[in-house]
Amino acid sequence: MPWSLEEGAYRKLSLQNDARIVFLIFDGLGDLPGPDGVTPLEAADAPVLDRLAAEGVCGQFDPVAPGITPGSGPGHLGLFGYNPLQFPVGRGVLAALGIDFPLEPADVAARFNYCTLDGEGRITDRRAGRISTQENQRLTALLHAKLGDAFGDVKVFVETVSEHRGLLVLRGDGLGAAVCDTDPQATGVPPIDACGEDAASQRTAELVRKIVARVRELLAGEPKANGILLRGFDRRPDIPSLGERFQLRPVCIAQYPMYRGLARLVGMDLPAAPAELDDLPGALKAVWDHHDFFFLHVKYTDKAGEDGDFARKVRVIEQVDRFIPKILDLGPDVLVVSADHSTPASLKAHSWHPVPTLLWAPATVRPDEVSSFGERACIKGGLGRQRLSNLLPIALAHAHKFQKFGA
Amino acid sequence: MPWSLEEGAYRKLSLQNDARIVFLIFDGLGDLPGPDGVTPLEAADAPVLDRLAAEGVCGQFDPVAPGITPGSGPGHLGLFGYNPLQFPVGRGVLAALGIDFPLEPADVAARFNYCTLDGEGRITDRRAGRISTQENQRLTALLHAKLGDAFGDVKVFVETVSEHRGLLVLRGDGLGAAVCDTDPQATGVPPIDACGEDAASQRTAELVRKIVARVRELLAGEPKANGILLRGFDRRPDIPSLGERFQLRPVCIAQYPMYRGLARLVGMDLPAAPAELDDLPGALKAVWDHHDFFFLHVKYTDKAGEDGDFARKVRVIEQVDRFIPKILDLGPDVLVVSADHSTPASLKAHSWHPVPTLLWAPATVRPDEVSSFGERACIKGGLGRQRLSNLLPIALAHAHKFQKFGA
Repeated sequence: MPWSLEEGAYRKLSLQNDARIVFLIFDGLGDLPGPDGVTPLEAADAPVLDRLAAEGVCGQFDPVAPGITPGSGPGHLGLFGYNPLQFPVGRGVLAALGIDFPLEPADVAARFNYCTLDGEGRITDRRAGRISTQENQRLTALLHAKLGDAFGDVKVFVETVSEHRGLLVLRGDGLGAAVCDTDPQATGVPPIDACGEDAASQRTAELVRKIVARVRELLAGEPKANGILLRGFDRRPDIPSLGERFQLRPVCIAQYPMYRGLARLVGMDLPAAPAELDDLPGALKAVWDHHDFFFLHVKYTDKAGEDGDFARKVRVIEQVDRFIPKILDLGPDVLVVSADHSTPASLKAHSWHPVPTLLWAPATVRPDEVSSFGERACIKGGLGRQRLSNLLPIALAHAHKFQKFGA
Repeated sequence: MPWSLEEGAYRKLSLQNDARIVFLIFDGLGDLPGPDGVTPLEAADAPVLDRLAAEGVCGQFDPVAPGITPGSGPGHLGLFGYNPLQFPVGRGVLAALGIDFPLEPADVAARFNYCTLDGEGRITDRRAGRISTQENQRLTALLHAKLGDAFGDVKVFVETVSEHRGLLVLRGDGLGAAVCDTDPQATGVPPIDACGEDAASQRTAELVRKIVARVRELLAGEPKANGILLRGFDRRPDIPSLGERFQLRPVCIAQYPMYRGLARLVGMDLPAAPAELDDLPGALKAVWDHHDFFFLHVKYTDKAGEDGDFARKVRVIEQVDRFIPKILDLGPDVLVVSADHSTPASLKAHSWHPVPTLLWAPATVRPDEVSSFGERACIKGGLGRQRLSNLLPIALAHAHKFQKFGA
């Protein structure tokens, strides 16, 4: 395990105490100025966030590294205090987490697209005309039934993700995960034959070629989805848990399976999340006595950003702002408000911009002169600009969860 | 030697010239706001420091890494330009440095506490009722006389540190320093048997067990201090000197043995320090012609912080401020004012908060808009927020002590 010097030190210095840390995470919070020259966070009427920023210390955090746009996996790993470049989470594994598929440590997972192939086996549509999820489910049930036990000792799972997207999981002994993508990311050419980087992965690639051939036989009569393209073969990463690294007793309150899956990867407890955003403080209160690290995930800011809906993003921020006092009533020692990445409404996509962040900790904070919570205000914050994976260690320090280093 | 790329580059680019760099270090300078909402440094009437901050460039520096609270050893190594995580200094070595014990490269040193053991050999008091230093000296003289030459080729030194604290040093061939602590950090249990991680350390641990057993025989009649608990076995780290790394001719003016010892570790000259703080400029003048790097250590800010004495910390800063003009009269090319760590009066302990720092260098500085020297002012400084080990290289650059890298 290629631990950095810092990570080794953090692990050795960790200690357990009763101090409680809340991470309130607005997915995709960071943004760019809209037509009025302000961002959704700057535009929002959010007096509680502004007060916390004024009383606390602010900064900007790069989720992975400067200029790198993170997917949801790396963004969350950064928030959880891991260097996302050190613990890559493959597309197949994320897809499995996203549909709550119970991936076992030795499983090999890959994402696939249904695609359309012409008579010569060349790709004419990499997304099979974006078939419906229902259509996907019909095809997937067929494949799952025919392929599941057809390959000897290796059990094959075929699962629907959504629309043209699916998940392939191989379970058995001696599999390798260093298998190349079969999606050439182009039309007019045939899919790439699966290939493997090492002996075990070469055997696995041979199995994948057989599976792909059998899929083509089974789907030969389909007008649109008559083939599959595979991407992101991987295994569940072997990530040391937050308990091992920091002696934390962490819990995640998140609705969406992908974030729940990511939290599970690092050993968080996962109570059922409330259906309504406004019920988040109640859900937090219910688990308050049994944990010391509380990860609260608000998805809707990211959704609004992806949809290019500036006004909706503002409304989500305002809605959360109104219930933060209920979180404060529980008496956290440290409250961090941050994000896994930026999702500017004008870009309708994740971006590389650093995420605005505030850390509130009445007993131990050295305040800066920031008096409101916003992207530009945070530039002048005392936390400066740093890697997102530093944020959790800083929060732990404010909760006195590290011993002194050296005498 | 695991040099980072940067360190290798710094070493290759170093050159010697007559430019002089002064590091004026206030131990534990960084703090948190007191009841009036300002820190001791912000509260101090320190017009010279404010002018230097206005003319120079400021910033915040993390002594070790974000969130890590450094002991005195790591904090100083950071100031000396070393990554403290790369050059750990064990508790035993620091104790030796702290009492000016002339540690040789192969010596193995450990800190010990006198403790109280009950009839069954269980610890009832880990600090032996905090016996007086005088009492310690009596016991230590006895042990030193009886143990010194009692173990064949290995010479045993037993030395008083203070109160219940002592130093054990083993000198001989083939010793190992990877020996576990015998202090279980708990009462009601017996001390841990010394154990070693490698063959040499296992032999050393066996010797330690014999020493511990003999100590118990020798102290059997003592009412309080009838045993010892050992911690932090280590060797003097093999640190390349500032001369080797940067071609510096460094000198340290510090009163306290621990800081003198740390300075000796990196090859600084060590003239006798003045008893009075106000005589620091005179002591500096006396060595001005023979060196180009001057490390001035002011202990009393840290002491005031540890004692929770906000007002005294303010007074120490103001006292130093008044004599800085005498330092400037000597004509330094670069003057840095910084700290080894923060010691907030409200926490009465070292903390992880970054240290406020100013760099003054009339010929080469790019000033920022900071106009006073304080924790919050430094947030907006041109040096930004970075690792403390970067500070010395930046100062060296301002003294033209690096060649250009690449053509």
